[in-house]
Amino acid sequence: MSQNSTAADRPGIVTLTTDFGVQDGYVGAMKGVVLEIAGSVTVVDITHEIPPQDVEAGAYIFHTAYPHFPDGTIHVVVVDPGVGRKRRGLVVETARYRFVGPDNGVFTPVFQAEADCRMVSLENPEWMRKDVSATFHGRDVFAPAAGYLCQGVEIEAFGPFVTDPVMLDVWAVREEADRLTGRIVHVDRFGNGISNLSEEQVEAAVEGRVVEIGGQIFHRIHRTYGDVVQGEPLLLYGSQGTLEISVNGGSAAEEMGVQRGDEVRLIGKDR
Amino acid sequence: MSQNSTAADRPGIVTLTTDFGVQDGYVGAMKGVVLEIAGSVTVVDITHEIPPQDVEAGAYIFHTAYPHFPDGTIHVVVVDPGVGRKRRGLVVETARYRFVGPDNGVFTPVFQAEADCRMVSLENPEWMRKDVSATFHGRDVFAPAAGYLCQGVEIEAFGPFVTDPVMLDVWAVREEADRLTGRIVHVDRFGNGISNLSEEQVEAAVEGRVVEIGGQIFHRIHRTYGDVVQGEPLLLYGSQGTLEISVNGGSAAEEMGVQRGDEVRLIGKDR
Amino acid sequence: MSQNSTAADRPGIVTLTTDFGVQDGYVGAMKGVVLEIAGSVTVVDITHEIPPQDVEAGAYIFHTAYPHFPDGTIHVVVVDPGVGRKRRGLVVETARYRFVGPDNGVFTPVFQAEADCRMVSLENPEWMRKDVSATFHGRDVFAPAAGYLCQGVEIEAFGPFVTDPVMLDVWAVREEADRLTGRIVHVDRFGNGISNLSEEQVEAAVEGRVVEIGGQIFHRIHRTYGDVVQGEPLLLYGSQGTLEISVNGGSAAEEMGVQRGDEVRLIGKDR
Repeated sequence: MSQNSTAADRPGIVTLTTDFGVQDGYVGAMKGVVLEIAGSVTVVDITHEIPPQDVEAGAYIFHTAYPHFPDGTIHVVVVDPGVGRKRRGLVVETARYRFVGPDNGVFTPVFQAEADCRMVSLENPEWMRKDVSATFHGRDVFAPAAGYLCQGVEIEAFGPFVTDPVMLDVWAVREEADRLTGRIVHVDRFGNGISNLSEEQVEAAVEGRVVEIGGQIFHRIHRTYGDVVQGEPLLLYGSQGTLEISVNGGSAAEEMGVQRGDEVRLIGKDR
Repeated sequence: MSQNSTAADRPGIVTLTTDFGVQDGYVGAMKGVVLEIAGSVTVVDITHEIPPQDVEAGAYIFHTAYPHFPDGTIHVVVVDPGVGRKRRGLVVETARYRFVGPDNGVFTPVFQAEADCRMVSLENPEWMRKDVSATFHGRDVFAPAAGYLCQGVEIEAFGPFVTDPVMLDVWAVREEADRLTGRIVHVDRFGNGISNLSEEQVEAAVEGRVVEIGGQIFHRIHRTYGDVVQGEPLLLYGSQGTLEISVNGGSAAEEMGVQRGDEVRLIGKDR
Repeated sequence: MSQNSTAADRPGIVTLTTDFGVQDGYVGAMKGVVLEIAGSVTVVDITHEIPPQDVEAGAYIFHTAYPHFPDGTIHVVVVDPGVGRKRRGLVVETARYRFVGPDNGVFTPVFQAEADCRMVSLENPEWMRKDVSATFHGRDVFAPAAGYLCQGVEIEAFGPFVTDPVMLDVWAVREEADRLTGRIVHVDRFGNGISNLSEEQVEAAVEGRVVEIGGQIFHRIHRTYGDVVQGEPLLLYGSQGTLEISVNGGSAAEEMGVQRGDEVRLIGKDR
């Protein structure tokens, strides 16, 4: 890792992604712990509004943000319904980043996207707060690990290497003879329903393809919201490069009832 | 611009004002892009809770915060219902700041307040992400522009100079023989209704003046909430120096139904 | 104070805890003022979602976060229903930190926890914005004070020393012959009801002790959520070291109606 030389060039960055909300003191406590250990590091909020204990949503939202950060960034993700029980903690290292969080699948998209992942089970109490609580490992285990990583501690110091992290199996696309079946994997603030069907998958289908969502058939895929009149639904490729259903100037969630988990069927054979 | 010498003195500051909310990964992605390009800059959230696609609200709220930042700050504002269509992007330079965002009126208060504004149409793909999406210019166009401004790129490099930015016409006060008619331009978290009638305008009226809001007549303007008993409505000059309607210990929005757009009439002749 | 030498080692940290929410420009204005005065300081949000004007909640939430920050941190807390009236402002200095905010009890847990507190009444207009508004001392009084503290201004410069700060009397535990009566002092995002009965107090009671909350009797105190089956209520010691009532995988607030202020009775004699 070139982290030490990076750290010489500029202060480290630690991002936080949690389901803690911001109405309590939990996020502030985590920031304090990171800064107390790591000194002049920059702590950046990705979001703290992951729906409580929703590991799948956390994984999805995190993966839309983390790849944009500079090399050397340390990403902490805490969506942790199993806190205090036997689930492991992880410290993961890839070519560009380190990641810290519970081993519950929240890093699934990282493991799918990053070629070289090394990871350890976060076990060494030397790098935890004394008196680790049974309910707040964000403050007592994961924030300290991020702080010590900033300080130059290598991942092997945190525990033994492991190769069997928990993987979520929720973003797979089902392939059948004449169709691909994906689903809505996220509904964003604007009510856009974001699917897991990539532009490549959709564009590889034959010309006569149609897309079916909630019983409604779409023949065209537009470029942007304004390509249809105000209030009309449309399909487009969103900022993640996947098929989205939107309403121009409105909300597909409110007006069409689009929800996470809804099936999205692409009907038409591959070229 | 003295930005380069400022940058030597201290790291740059980039503020973000958006309607993206914080439950998705959009804001995190923008922060990552700024930090990836600009290195050790400080990214500061003004707010991400502008009501979705509400350019007027974005303009109002942004203008209450931006003038307090240090010289050299780069302000990014993304409330962008027209994303992906023909609306321009802008890079604006004033004596103290640079601004980046869509050309849809969101910078109206800046243009009204700042004597010397130079601005360019943000067109040069050299300073954008490759593969600009049609739906997320915050990440692909505006955040990179802010990053490159931090790096010392001059505004003329981003595109041709323009002089005809979109201006909102929503904060004008109507003058008639014996009255000024303004309106509630913002309702804040505490339920205070903030008008566009300035202290100067109100105090210039003759002694017999009254203020009428929603059919209710006010004869006095108080100094602070506690000048009336708990639960009573009152008028005062708020932190923007304009007339506000409040309820001491309560919410004018909830208890009096005050809403953005309500007319506020100042009746009484000028001195 | 070792602040000056600390400042040489690393840039200062200013934390913000307010009830301003993030939908208005108030927080952005405060950040701008701090950065304008203090230069390259790091501004860290603890929370801006204290319920409006709820000093008790602000005091509780703040005290769960502030002790985790590094020595030299300056903590600004603005929950200020009395703004513009006669309530004092305070600048408080302890061995590790400085604190700035209204004198309304919001620092009660600080005064209870910190051995050596020196404090002054924040009165000197030299360290305030010109034209202090009657409604927004966060921007005009408290943020500037934090900025000037970062710049090395000593607390005695802000006003005369005082020794009689407002103290809240809401976290006291009532002791009777065979019982301790505490209460739920906070309900967090996950619906956990956090009491003010410490592990020491509970564990000092005799073996036959029971805990009664809302008419429900608990005989056992578990270690973590997963020690009971999904959907079951339980008691445990939370991350503040006090007794909490939770529902594994659920919300004690929603499912049991737990609210702030509810009494929590520990029945059983001291050893």
